[in-house]
Amino acid sequence: KRVVAPSFGVRAVAAADTKFKSGRTEITQVGKERPADHPCNEDPLKRKAELLYLSMQHNIVSAFEEIDGSGDFRVDAWDRKTGGGGVTMVKQGGNVFEKSGVAVSCVHGSFGPEAFVQAAQSVRMPGTGAPVERPSGEVPFFACGVSSVNHPWNPHAPTMHFNYRYFEIGGKDGVPKIWWYGGGADLTPSYLYEEDAIHFHQVHKDACDKHDKALYPKYKKWCDEYFLIKHRGETRGVGGIFFDDWNDRDQEAIMAFQKDCADALIPAYIPLVEKRKDQPFTEAEKEWQQIRRGRYVEYNLVYDRGTQFGLRTGGRTESILMSMPLTARWEYDHEPAAGSREAELLKVTRTPRDWLNIGA
Amino acid sequence: KRVVAPSFGVRAVAAADTKFKSGRTEITQVGKERPADHPCNEDPLKRKAELLYLSMQHNIVSAFEEIDGSGDFRVDAWDRKTGGGGVTMVKQGGNVFEKSGVAVSCVHGSFGPEAFVQAAQSVRMPGTGAPVERPSGEVPFFACGVSSVNHPWNPHAPTMHFNYRYFEIGGKDGVPKIWWYGGGADLTPSYLYEEDAIHFHQVHKDACDKHDKALYPKYKKWCDEYFLIKHRGETRGVGGIFFDDWNDRDQEAIMAFQKDCADALIPAYIPLVEKRKDQPFTEAEKEWQQIRRGRYVEYNLVYDRGTQFGLRTGGRTESILMSMPLTARWEYDHEPAAGSREAELLKVTRTPRDWLNIGA
Repeated sequence: KRVVAPSFGVRAVAAADTKFKSGRTEITQVGKERPADHPCNEDPLKRKAELLYLSMQHNIVSAFEEIDGSGDFRVDAWDRKTGGGGVTMVKQGGNVFEKSGVAVSCVHGSFGPEAFVQAAQSVRMPGTGAPVERPSGEVPFFACGVSSVNHPWNPHAPTMHFNYRYFEIGGKDGVPKIWWYGGGADLTPSYLYEEDAIHFHQVHKDACDKHDKALYPKYKKWCDEYFLIKHRGETRGVGGIFFDDWNDRDQEAIMAFQKDCADALIPAYIPLVEKRKDQPFTEAEKEWQQIRRGRYVEYNLVYDRGTQFGLRTGGRTESILMSMPLTARWEYDHEPAAGSREAELLKVTRTPRDWLNIGA
Repeated sequence: KRVVAPSFGVRAVAAADTKFKSGRTEITQVGKERPADHPCNEDPLKRKAELLYLSMQHNIVSAFEEIDGSGDFRVDAWDRKTGGGGVTMVKQGGNVFEKSGVAVSCVHGSFGPEAFVQAAQSVRMPGTGAPVERPSGEVPFFACGVSSVNHPWNPHAPTMHFNYRYFEIGGKDGVPKIWWYGGGADLTPSYLYEEDAIHFHQVHKDACDKHDKALYPKYKKWCDEYFLIKHRGETRGVGGIFFDDWNDRDQEAIMAFQKDCADALIPAYIPLVEKRKDQPFTEAEKEWQQIRRGRYVEYNLVYDRGTQFGLRTGGRTESILMSMPLTARWEYDHEPAAGSREAELLKVTRTPRDWLNIGA
């Protein structure tokens, strides 16, 4: 399968191609050169980020194609009129997953003070940690990242989401350059299997610890706080890791951290799906999964910053909403019976647990 | 069926009771007097608004109980800790409706300048039309309204939503009193039946025309603009009427308008459900309805001001989200075949029609 992805350029894709593990999908830029003034052509660090996220996409898609066994992901390459574009890969109605999607987008352009504040509301100046100054006019920006949501059919197999991204503002016309990294990965089961939650956290902790033992405790807590459905007082799932506005160390070091976390995704998640995908389930368990899918929709449409930002700033709707489950359910005032397995799951979303007994 | 609704008070409910048409559900305040300083005790106009919305709720619930024929609505009366409360009536899994809900809430208290701006962002001073001044501290508010969403099972029967409300800020401690009315009713079919859309609009136009012939054209257009799913470039359905910030005429006159519009709901909507509820449908038609339900969820969670305001300010989640359909579906990049009945519906959401040929 070959698709045209003009904004990514021949060299970027060729380089990413060399990192595929077993990808049955090949993305190739055909017949059109990337514009000479594309930010990734000017700046080796930006190109490196782009390649990093493309390679994450291809590694993950390869793993999902393998476990799902239902054939290739659909690939949509798109261009953004005002700069950049993306590649969205989706498999709907597979053998194991009702919907699985991995999307890369690398967009650039300029925006005004309002959008600047929206994007950089909590970031500090790289290096110094000083507050950022609100610019008076338009400033250039570059945003590149990969995001993915995967919903299995089986109510005993958890949903997994991850996202890794790089953001840069300014660096031209007297506006100081502000940059930061963000991302994370989290697990959303409909039924609690403690050993699954512990496994997912442990593999991520191991990846974090290779860089700095302080990172996992901090990012585990951040994840619980970030994926909170505030109007329910429930977290979206059993957490994982999350970070944002990260710019207090070397850029190469942060990208190496992101790469190790992304490499952890397959060993952290695929064995859980392998274990649960053929587990027997009842109609009532499927219905509970559908109610939990409704909560997933609530979080993504009401709170998720990427979704809100994307939908309100003319992003590609289908790429943004590929995170939606195939189906979802809302029952008025549904509360599972006390002591049930459904109530057990709710309890853990209402009081996040310290899965690895790190004492934090 | 008798429920406790302390914040509504004996007299309010008794008065509303006298207006019930055929309600099988009776709300009665038992054993607790409403606080003497409740705003509805002090101000005949506030009490009148409260009674108006309670009577709308009971008329509509009576009509729905009759056509659904599956027994009583569930009734939840709730109190808001910091002032006021509400009565939510929901029927889930009926014969005709998968979910039907009508909720009244009357809340009061005080809020700061931020919430003031949020609530009164586009309102002008009553009478003079002058801009409102942002207060420096806390200001009292009173908000009372009824809202309803009704999702039938049959994909040929349309969803109907309505909401009528009154809002008041200030009027104490040197803060000038600002008040306004808002509301409307709109129809969301999965399949277009022109005659159904025309009927719904005509009955509403007749109600509007009794008061002022300028109202329907203005409020029809406002409805198309308000219920726009911006990231899709689609309206939620085939429209109806919508207005907000209304305070340029006598309060009694606006309430009389709201009452006539609410009285129009049963003749505007129930005959459409009657006509379509037993119409045969295919599995593919049911699936298209589910995709349209997904769009409904997108509008309500991403754009609806009442939902956003309620969820972010600690409203009763189950009453706010009673508007969610029982089930919904999201397919990646779904586009119906050209010339199909599904494409016909989409077309009308992308280019709103002048159903009554009013030339506006």
